[in-house]
Amino acid sequence: MFTVQLLSAQTNTIEKKKFHFGREQDTTAGYAQVVKVDNILYVSGTVSTDISSAGIQRIYQTIERSLNYFGASLQNVVKENLYTTDIEAMKTHNEARKKMYKGDYPAATWVQISRLYMPDAKLEIEVIAHLPKEK
Amino acid sequence: MFTVQLLSAQTNTIEKKKFHFGREQDTTAGYAQVVKVDNILYVSGTVSTDISSAGIQRIYQTIERSLNYFGASLQNVVKENLYTTDIEAMKTHNEARKKMYKGDYPAATWVQISRLYMPDAKLEIEVIAHLPKEK
Amino acid sequence: MFTVQLLSAQTNTIEKKKFHFGREQDTTAGYAQVVKVDNILYVSGTVSTDISSAGIQRIYQTIERSLNYFGASLQNVVKENLYTTDIEAMKTHNEARKKMYKGDYPAATWVQISRLYMPDAKLEIEVIAHLPKEK
Repeated sequence: MFTVQLLSAQTNTIEKKKFHFGREQDTTAGYAQVVKVDNILYVSGTVSTDISSAGIQRIYQTIERSLNYFGASLQNVVKENLYTTDIEAMKTHNEARKKMYKGDYPAATWVQISRLYMPDAKLEIEVIAHLPKEK
Repeated sequence: MFTVQLLSAQTNTIEKKKFHFGREQDTTAGYAQVVKVDNILYVSGTVSTDISSAGIQRIYQTIERSLNYFGASLQNVVKENLYTTDIEAMKTHNEARKKMYKGDYPAATWVQISRLYMPDAKLEIEVIAHLPKEK
Repeated sequence: MFTVQLLSAQTNTIEKKKFHFGREQDTTAGYAQVVKVDNILYVSGTVSTDISSAGIQRIYQTIERSLNYFGASLQNVVKENLYTTDIEAMKTHNEARKKMYKGDYPAATWVQISRLYMPDAKLEIEVIAHLPKEK
C-alpha cells in the first residue's frame, strides 16, 4: 500500500525552480525565497526590522531582485500579504511601498500579528507573481 | 545591467485585469479588490467592523459582487483566509457564512490576529477563486 | 439583472475535487481539507495542540495523506503558511518539519498570532501544492 502511494507520488513529480540569493534554498530554516511552478512564482515572506520608508523600500527591492531572477518585476505581482507588528507605522510609510509598485497595485491583505520569525522583525511581506503562460 | 533586467521584465509582462467597485484600483491605500491573471481571481481582504450575521453576510455579498464582475460566484472560491480579532464570535455566526457558500465549501484557514487595517475592523476575509480554463 | 449575473456565474462553473478524510467536506465548520482545481491543490490549515516533534510530524503526515489522495506528496508543496501561538517553540522543533520535506523546501511564511480556531490549538499549517499540468 505504501509502495503504491509512493509510486503514485513519484509519477506526479512536478518541475519546481527555486531561487535563494545565490543558493537554491536555505537549508537552516528550511525554505526557498522563491519557488516557481508552471508560470507562478511563490515568494516567501521578506522581512524588515525597521518600519520606515527605507526599510519598506529594502523589502520590495529584495522581492524585486528575487522576481528579476525569473525575468519578472513587481509589475508581475498579483497578490500581496503583509504581516506587521505595527500596522499604523506601515500605513504612515505606505508611500514608500506605493512608489515601488509604480501605480500598478496587487490584491492585498494587511494584518497586525503578535510577532514574526526573528524576535526583532516588525514587517514581513509575501507575494504571488505570475509570468506569461508558457506556450 | 539594469537595462538588461528591465528589458527582461518588460518581455515578461503579464495581462492583469482589475476590479475595484467602479474603479480599476484604490490608489490611496494602493490595492485592487480583485486582480485576475490567467483564470485565477485573487480577491483582497474584505472587511467588516461588525461580527454579526448581517456583517458576515455583507462581506460575502461584497466578495460575490467582486466575483460577479468576472462572471464568477462564491461557488468559484477554492480557498478562504479569514482573519478576525474575535474567532469565537465568528464561530457563533458561522451559519451566516455557510449560507452564502450554499453548502459548497472551500479550503479554509481561520486565525485570530491583533488588529486589521482600520482600527475598528474586526473581520477580514480574502479568497482565491478560479474561472474555467481559457481554451 | 440578478438573472443575468446568475446565468453568467453558471456559465463559468469550475470543476473542483475535494478531499476531507473519507468525506467530501466538513459541513459543520464548513470547509474541505483539500480543494483541487486545475492542477492546483489548496490545503486547509491543519492543526496541532502540541508544538513538539511528534505534534509537528502528525500535522505533516495529515497533510501528506491529504496530498496522497490526489497522487501528490510533500514534494509537490510549493508554498507553506505557518501560524502559531509560539514561534520560538516551532523554531526549536523545526528539524521534525524539515525531515518531513526531505530536504526539498517550499516558499514559506511563519507568523505568531493570538489564537486559532480551537481554543487549545497552538500550530496551524496550510500549503499549496501543484500536480503536473494536465495535457
